[in-house]
Amino acid sequence: MNQKKIILTGDRPTGPLHLGHYVGSLQNRVAMQETHTQYVIIADAQALTDNADNPQKVRENVLEVALDYLAVGIDPAKTTIFIQSLIPQIPELTMYYLNLVTWNRLKHNPTVKQEIQQKGFGDSVPAGFMVYPVSQAADITFVKAEVVPVGEDQLPMIEQTNELVRHFNRIYKTDVLVEVQAVIPKFARLPGTDGKAKMSKSLGNAIFLSDPADVVEKKVKGMFTDPNHLRVEDPGKVEGNPVFSYLDAFDTNLTKVQELKDHYTRGGLGDSVVKKYLLEVLQNFLQPLRQRRAEFAKDKGEVMRLLKQGTERTLKVAEKTLSDVRRAMCLDYF
Amino acid sequence: MNQKKIILTGDRPTGPLHLGHYVGSLQNRVAMQETHTQYVIIADAQALTDNADNPQKVRENVLEVALDYLAVGIDPAKTTIFIQSLIPQIPELTMYYLNLVTWNRLKHNPTVKQEIQQKGFGDSVPAGFMVYPVSQAADITFVKAEVVPVGEDQLPMIEQTNELVRHFNRIYKTDVLVEVQAVIPKFARLPGTDGKAKMSKSLGNAIFLSDPADVVEKKVKGMFTDPNHLRVEDPGKVEGNPVFSYLDAFDTNLTKVQELKDHYTRGGLGDSVVKKYLLEVLQNFLQPLRQRRAEFAKDKGEVMRLLKQGTERTLKVAEKTLSDVRRAMCLDYF
Repeated sequence: MNQKKIILTGDRPTGPLHLGHYVGSLQNRVAMQETHTQYVIIADAQALTDNADNPQKVRENVLEVALDYLAVGIDPAKTTIFIQSLIPQIPELTMYYLNLVTWNRLKHNPTVKQEIQQKGFGDSVPAGFMVYPVSQAADITFVKAEVVPVGEDQLPMIEQTNELVRHFNRIYKTDVLVEVQAVIPKFARLPGTDGKAKMSKSLGNAIFLSDPADVVEKKVKGMFTDPNHLRVEDPGKVEGNPVFSYLDAFDTNLTKVQELKDHYTRGGLGDSVVKKYLLEVLQNFLQPLRQRRAEFAKDKGEVMRLLKQGTERTLKVAEKTLSDVRRAMCLDYF
Repeated sequence: MNQKKIILTGDRPTGPLHLGHYVGSLQNRVAMQETHTQYVIIADAQALTDNADNPQKVRENVLEVALDYLAVGIDPAKTTIFIQSLIPQIPELTMYYLNLVTWNRLKHNPTVKQEIQQKGFGDSVPAGFMVYPVSQAADITFVKAEVVPVGEDQLPMIEQTNELVRHFNRIYKTDVLVEVQAVIPKFARLPGTDGKAKMSKSLGNAIFLSDPADVVEKKVKGMFTDPNHLRVEDPGKVEGNPVFSYLDAFDTNLTKVQELKDHYTRGGLGDSVVKKYLLEVLQNFLQPLRQRRAEFAKDKGEVMRLLKQGTERTLKVAEKTLSDVRRAMCLDYF
């Protein structure tokens, strides 16, 4: 009998989810819930590491993100969705892990270094932000996740998690913690509507899963294409053209996409025609999501109840792991 | 009606307590339990920040420290003694506080800088050690301590705690956290038997509360005195002479102590005579402690039960504070 592997994924609830999230992770989660024991963490505590002064935003987005999950088909009967801040075993484990990593090691985490630059913290990096890789190691290990889907830029995080696992198991002579494997999904990244490498709320180049039809239409019509494709008869470039990246990601009719690409490359295919087709594809994809989202949004109490159930299931797992952790650390007093 | 003020003190369970602890804090606690609502924290989690690879030592010393408390007269009916690692609200609060302090601020904490040098960490400072002032702020604030007795070198810690309190209350528009006042006890520091400024287990110059009579005798006989007081008839120095510091701290017969000091300063009083008298004073002080300690040590299960009761009382306080903290932070989901 094959036991299902445990997988952990999740999001920081700092904004609604967009097509980039769908391509990079949500569609993967919908598949994984059939084959894995899947946990999805709504990382509100982590969101607070750089939104400490805006807790209301984090709070509201917990519900929005949950609605996005339900809209894309993450099924609470198959996937355990939980709220990070309601699992006190995570900060507890984080504090134990902080004793096993040096200050210098944290400082030199390449992912964190890059993010500090991106976020423009300068000399004012919150300590909570610096230690978030350790907190993330706690997220991953308390559920004993064996697989974590990550972007390539997150690989140093997983490395640090496994370092902690080995260090902990070695000095406390235990096997309570489990090393995790990073998996990089095929479609890791969707470009923004402006052609920038990454779709992101803060860059203002995102199509959200919850965008109404008219907003999607406006965003698609305004999309960046090949800037040298000035007249319809000119040959156009497909590479770096987000319109085609989106078709690759969302159109299941591969022959049609190939035809369009060939035609565009040859010349004679106008941007507006391709965009019109893309809009059709996206609306067909988004319409049922919008509908499901609207259904769930009618009863937000029910959504919170689903989150509560998932969190309670997760708490049981957390209690078991921490009980083993404390025993290994000689902290099982009573 | 005067409400009793809340006071928090405690120890890292890394070794048995000694006369220096008694003079610097334990005697104060015995007095404070009559006039304050007193919490005493056995800081096992903090002890692990620089003893992560030696949890057994920490575990054993939790019991030893508890026995020392009971021996000196800290009364679990009047003082709430609790084990830090059993209060999950402390790491939770610590993680929230870490978002409110910059990495740089932590790095420049003068107490921590000094301790890093003393402990010879070099470049390998555990991250847990660097953040322990924040963890300590959580210890202090979750019980809403209004008074904390500290050594002078710990004042920057209290300053940092109050900074966090103000920052938290300001950004979360709340008054859930309470600023704390540092109190420096009169006899803050007892020198070591070797005359060094501080009695400390690691310096090997300590007389432990649990030392048997013959060990105390040996330690007193070997005490450092005035190195220039070579012959009995020579005038001796009282300042920097630990024998007289101990008499100041433990002999209630002030006239007698003054006489001895005068005689020693004039010359004609041998070290061995003063030491013999000091030994008498110390044995008179230690004998009832030893006896009480031995009584309690007969039933270690009962001692653990007392710790459990104190911890459970503390958990109720912690739950209330964190419930208020979470509400202020918009993390009160259900």
